[in-house]
Amino acid sequence: MSGLLRPDEGEPVIVINGDGKSPVVLVCEHAGKVMPKALGSLGLPPEDLVRHIAWDIGAEAVSRQLAQALDAPLILQRYSRLAYDCNRPPESPGAMPEVSETTRIPGNEGLSEDQRFQRIRCLYRPFHDAVSEFLDRRAARGAVSLLVTMHSFTPIYKGKRRHLDLGVLHDRDSRLADIVLSLCGRLKDIVAKRNEPYGPEDGVCHTLNLHGGMRNLHNVMLEIRNDLISHETGQSQWASRLQDILEQAIALVFRPAAVRVNSST
Amino acid sequence: MSGLLRPDEGEPVIVINGDGKSPVVLVCEHAGKVMPKALGSLGLPPEDLVRHIAWDIGAEAVSRQLAQALDAPLILQRYSRLAYDCNRPPESPGAMPEVSETTRIPGNEGLSEDQRFQRIRCLYRPFHDAVSEFLDRRAARGAVSLLVTMHSFTPIYKGKRRHLDLGVLHDRDSRLADIVLSLCGRLKDIVAKRNEPYGPEDGVCHTLNLHGGMRNLHNVMLEIRNDLISHETGQSQWASRLQDILEQAIALVFRPAAVRVNSST
Repeated sequence: MSGLLRPDEGEPVIVINGDGKSPVVLVCEHAGKVMPKALGSLGLPPEDLVRHIAWDIGAEAVSRQLAQALDAPLILQRYSRLAYDCNRPPESPGAMPEVSETTRIPGNEGLSEDQRFQRIRCLYRPFHDAVSEFLDRRAARGAVSLLVTMHSFTPIYKGKRRHLDLGVLHDRDSRLADIVLSLCGRLKDIVAKRNEPYGPEDGVCHTLNLHGGMRNLHNVMLEIRNDLISHETGQSQWASRLQDILEQAIALVFRPAAVRVNSST
Repeated sequence: MSGLLRPDEGEPVIVINGDGKSPVVLVCEHAGKVMPKALGSLGLPPEDLVRHIAWDIGAEAVSRQLAQALDAPLILQRYSRLAYDCNRPPESPGAMPEVSETTRIPGNEGLSEDQRFQRIRCLYRPFHDAVSEFLDRRAARGAVSLLVTMHSFTPIYKGKRRHLDLGVLHDRDSRLADIVLSLCGRLKDIVAKRNEPYGPEDGVCHTLNLHGGMRNLHNVMLEIRNDLISHETGQSQWASRLQDILEQAIALVFRPAAVRVNSST
């Protein structure tokens, strides 16, 4: 499938530290805000193309530092979610949204079949194919993978303030989220909540389910409030905090079952 | 990825009647019993390579007739599930089973990382990529798809007789299975059961979930007892019976909600 991305534009996916030794595999679907040149600005003024509707502010920076700290692989998606939201299946109205939060996206209105297919096949599919191939290789060598997807959310959505620092999201398989939430509960300086500010009912667990659920991997989605990681100090702070939490979570996942049972009594 | 299938061997997937007008998309993961030449006989005598452990006896024949009767697309997988069971993720021990039912599969023992990766990337992945691409195209044009996967089961498993003719299987999303089961309930001449002889707890809903669940498509897995469809008469009979059931199911899925509510009171 060609036609959306020109030869001088990069592939949607970047794999960082692919040989990382951690069982954690970090995935960041909304890392970038690059717009495919063929789509222009989607009819939006420049300021809208750098807002949270276009990407997850700060998520890439935290993810890169966290990948280094954990020695974990990280799979990033470079293009703006306004072109295609890689955390949504092709059938979802949110995949190529005509409205994001309260902003009309003119360039997503009235798309033809071929335009939609091109976005699906040039953005969504190569990204998920790359995640699949990466996890296939790990499966082939019997490596256990813990899937952690990295996101950020806007402090105020549709005029309403959100009262949390970290959202710990999961769908049907809550194994890893339960561990992460219990570890967060010991920290006095952050407010972490389960399945907030979104949950599976909002369709935000697509990547988790597609790669984690389908393979029966432990999986969790982390959503950091973006004003906390819009600057370097906050990014380092959160990378370090999540390193602590995930290192403890890994130890708990790999602890023998008998010990796990004792520790919860 | 090359190296498993030689140039004169076909791709794993065959799409039949791709332009079919039915909303039903038929998928048959265990249609074929072809063994990739590079794998020889997996150390098995010839008679084991034609048993139910190698493929779903009769499923392809019924599926082809059903596709024609419904004017539905059908996506077939040609290779033996002993080489790779395309209804299992790469992490599953059942993907390249060392034992199937009670039969040891010597050629699947002690596989190296590269051997496992090659099976995953040359059999499993191209098959599911083809299903994804097919459904992506339908999503792009806004076509609603009902995913129906076609299987057969052996009448006696590990020495125990199974007392049903048709298994109607589903995981979390039972919308289509509920409709099919209610239609089967009106038939006096067949015994249909929900999530028998297998269910989601046995990991058999992988394809359903991967393509149906992930896209929020209505989906169901049909398992016909293979002695009923091991001969042409039975194959035609079951194709015709399933045509009736699925045509009624389609009508019910597409019936306006208000009418559906009334009809259930």
